[in-house]
Amino acid sequence: MSDGETHGTEAEVIFHISKKDRFPDWYGEICRVAELADIRYGVKGFTPFLPWSVMTMEVMFDILERVLQRKGHLPMLFPSVIPESNLTRETEHVQGFTPQVFWISEYGEGVKLEERLALRPTSETAIYPMYSLWIRSWRDLPLKRYQRCTVFRSEVKSTRPFLRGREFLWIESHNVFATHEEGLAQVKEDLETTKEVITEEYGIPVMVFKRTQWDKFPGGVNTYAADTLMPDGKVLQLPSTHDLGDNFARSFDVKYVNKDNETVYAFQTCYGPAISRIYGGMISVHGDDNGLRLPFKLAPYQVVIVPIFKGKNMNEIVQHCRAIESSLKEAGMRVYLDDRDATPGWKYNYWEMKGVPIRVEVGQREVKQGKVAVFRRDRMSRETVALEGLTKRVRALGSEIDHALRSEAEARFEGLVVDAESLGQVEDALDKGKIVRVPFCTSQMDGMSCGEEIKNKTGGEVRGTRIDVEEKPTGVCVVCGKVAQEFVYVARSY
Amino acid sequence: MSDGETHGTEAEVIFHISKKDRFPDWYGEICRVAELADIRYGVKGFTPFLPWSVMTMEVMFDILERVLQRKGHLPMLFPSVIPESNLTRETEHVQGFTPQVFWISEYGEGVKLEERLALRPTSETAIYPMYSLWIRSWRDLPLKRYQRCTVFRSEVKSTRPFLRGREFLWIESHNVFATHEEGLAQVKEDLETTKEVITEEYGIPVMVFKRTQWDKFPGGVNTYAADTLMPDGKVLQLPSTHDLGDNFARSFDVKYVNKDNETVYAFQTCYGPAISRIYGGMISVHGDDNGLRLPFKLAPYQVVIVPIFKGKNMNEIVQHCRAIESSLKEAGMRVYLDDRDATPGWKYNYWEMKGVPIRVEVGQREVKQGKVAVFRRDRMSRETVALEGLTKRVRALGSEIDHALRSEAEARFEGLVVDAESLGQVEDALDKGKIVRVPFCTSQMDGMSCGEEIKNKTGGEVRGTRIDVEEKPTGVCVVCGKVAQEFVYVARSY
Repeated sequence: MSDGETHGTEAEVIFHISKKDRFPDWYGEICRVAELADIRYGVKGFTPFLPWSVMTMEVMFDILERVLQRKGHLPMLFPSVIPESNLTRETEHVQGFTPQVFWISEYGEGVKLEERLALRPTSETAIYPMYSLWIRSWRDLPLKRYQRCTVFRSEVKSTRPFLRGREFLWIESHNVFATHEEGLAQVKEDLETTKEVITEEYGIPVMVFKRTQWDKFPGGVNTYAADTLMPDGKVLQLPSTHDLGDNFARSFDVKYVNKDNETVYAFQTCYGPAISRIYGGMISVHGDDNGLRLPFKLAPYQVVIVPIFKGKNMNEIVQHCRAIESSLKEAGMRVYLDDRDATPGWKYNYWEMKGVPIRVEVGQREVKQGKVAVFRRDRMSRETVALEGLTKRVRALGSEIDHALRSEAEARFEGLVVDAESLGQVEDALDKGKIVRVPFCTSQMDGMSCGEEIKNKTGGEVRGTRIDVEEKPTGVCVVCGKVAQEFVYVARSY
Repeated sequence: MSDGETHGTEAEVIFHISKKDRFPDWYGEICRVAELADIRYGVKGFTPFLPWSVMTMEVMFDILERVLQRKGHLPMLFPSVIPESNLTRETEHVQGFTPQVFWISEYGEGVKLEERLALRPTSETAIYPMYSLWIRSWRDLPLKRYQRCTVFRSEVKSTRPFLRGREFLWIESHNVFATHEEGLAQVKEDLETTKEVITEEYGIPVMVFKRTQWDKFPGGVNTYAADTLMPDGKVLQLPSTHDLGDNFARSFDVKYVNKDNETVYAFQTCYGPAISRIYGGMISVHGDDNGLRLPFKLAPYQVVIVPIFKGKNMNEIVQHCRAIESSLKEAGMRVYLDDRDATPGWKYNYWEMKGVPIRVEVGQREVKQGKVAVFRRDRMSRETVALEGLTKRVRALGSEIDHALRSEAEARFEGLVVDAESLGQVEDALDKGKIVRVPFCTSQMDGMSCGEEIKNKTGGEVRGTRIDVEEKPTGVCVVCGKVAQEFVYVARSY
């Protein structure tokens, strides 16, 4: 940070917690020490996000929005409040979300509102009544829009910064098509966007599932979601995309006149990447026992420059550092020159804990020799680079770091899925942090009680069926013994 | 828009309303026709913002945030809700804001919250309790932070898209200093930021006033605000910055240990540029009778390319357009190739109404001659440009357009201020759309009744005293006849 930091002893910024063995402690402590969020706000589940996380999430939003816009989505912004009468128009939807809704019923000194307003838990019921006004003819379709905002849900599960909060940051994309086929193509596009952004840009590997009928988006036809694996062996749901069919169109009167001059219902999809949650997943996946390890693409400061001086040669070295700062910035990098009044050792520890991918160290000897020391955080290794090649080398290192972080995360996915044929085997595998594939009666509503039994007996949740591979089981349902119609995947989850 | 637009007859997109004579109609209609906002949402004062305004506001935010970050402010994000007990800790502040606060008192199906939550009307009372925890020593100061968010106020005045809504978009910067002098220096910096961003980047001229004691920010010491002039002769308040002294520090216990090891209160300032309101002012100041005129710096599409073809030569011309699109985009410009199925004439009218600063027209003849027609929206004039010089010419035209729009707006400020020595003269001048300078007893609380009389008799509001010039009046107060201690400026306002 450029201001307001306390510069204490080195001990204060040395982070060392085993991520693997003590993940909950690791997570809580890194949020506190790296100043990502402050849980002392005083309202359960509402957490101030601090500069180091906000700046990273800005970069993450920017990457995601560029991809969405390239694919023809345009941004808009709806109010945070939804009239109660809108919310109740889709029966399944209102049943799914009402328990979580915060209500505004008065303002000022006790003035009652004519109608209660919901703080949006998600915006279908805010947006679709307007879509009903905007969409008239087949020429108005497809309509592809998104908004970037916060949403509010009174979660019953225990909250944790970024991973589960009562107000979180997301993008919600809401799209309207003439046919169901086009809607399904959009779902496919959304899943590709997930791969492109979450995995290729943020470096987070995911597995994509079609959720069961009892775990789908309330009011929709089908939900497709990406799960990643957290260090404690539980999975975390990352973006989900929903095929809404024409269910919401019927409830909200989203109709158009087709080329045959008939008035028909439109088909809709929505997609909701929650950036704050993805951020929580990203730091968990990439971090190590020494703190954060931010990908070069995402780090607020991609490079920090630390001057090393003893008294009289300070000016010369700082000037040298400024020249390096300028040239890296001109090359389009986010750079911070740390000329604060603290020891180099303190600064090293501080920025390692904060996860800055590359550090450039500049001392008297380096100035004389036209060289600098370049440190990469992911491997904690150091090399000497000649000044004239610095920009090129830093850029190359940035790519290497991103590639290495992603590969390391993907390696954890290998051998992650195991088969089981009894609930006992399921539980054993879950205890080892595995995702378990089991033959299962059905992911339609009839299978719900078997899903609940799995949950009760093993703590694992049915995450759904694979959509990228055709899988035909031959055995019987691991719970009820009926002929298995599907393989489903079971995991403990956030 | 790349999708979802209706392509009707040319009449539908021809806009023509006298901005000068019928400004309220002009404003309402351009918001509707250019698809900036939709007032049919159904909750008073809450308005969906549509892509064409959201994309422009994104650019405006980006410019403002870069300046703030360059000046050492870092972004953060606090919750949208504030516990009632926080809100009531600063007495004047709570009195000023409580009438406007929306309250959340329950969630789900009738579950009461232990403590009511306010939807933030502004975030001092959310943020300062945390500042009290974060700030310990003089080394933590200055602390310069900001957040970008929406805030909620149950306005009693009639609402209008962007200009006055019950939820609006802004940045709020909250800063803490060791001394009052540093706080006052921050106020000065904020006023410079206003000039740099609002006037130099957005092209909106402003006059800066120190507000009267009865019109300052509730709980603060002094408020300094910029006003611009709207086409109907009323002024619109743009960013205001507040010297909070140590008032809030005392209420929220924001203390630090100074270099002498004494625990003392800190001094605070805050600054609140409301981007949605500034957007409303920007389109009003720059628009003309034919619709929007967006500055080149702010337009979502700085250049639209319109192909002109008759049947068989379509492919050749569209390919030619794509090459132009690529080269302009590579030069860093925001470009839209309008290859929709509509006539060139319809597209011309459409983009003129939408205010795109530059249009490139490409037909058969142009392709053959290696030239294109370039149209600039501000002057509605056309020139022929050779392809090889196009990028350079477009960039130069962009600068010319921004300069011309700003000069035109500034010209309206000339001769705007007139002197008056009686309430009758004040009213006459206000009727002519002037800002009126009058000798006045005092802008301290003792002058409040005189201010109210001016308001009741002329409809004008006392906007405060000038801070950029020393002014010493010799006459008597235009209302009470006491010796005038100040010149104040009176205007009708939004």
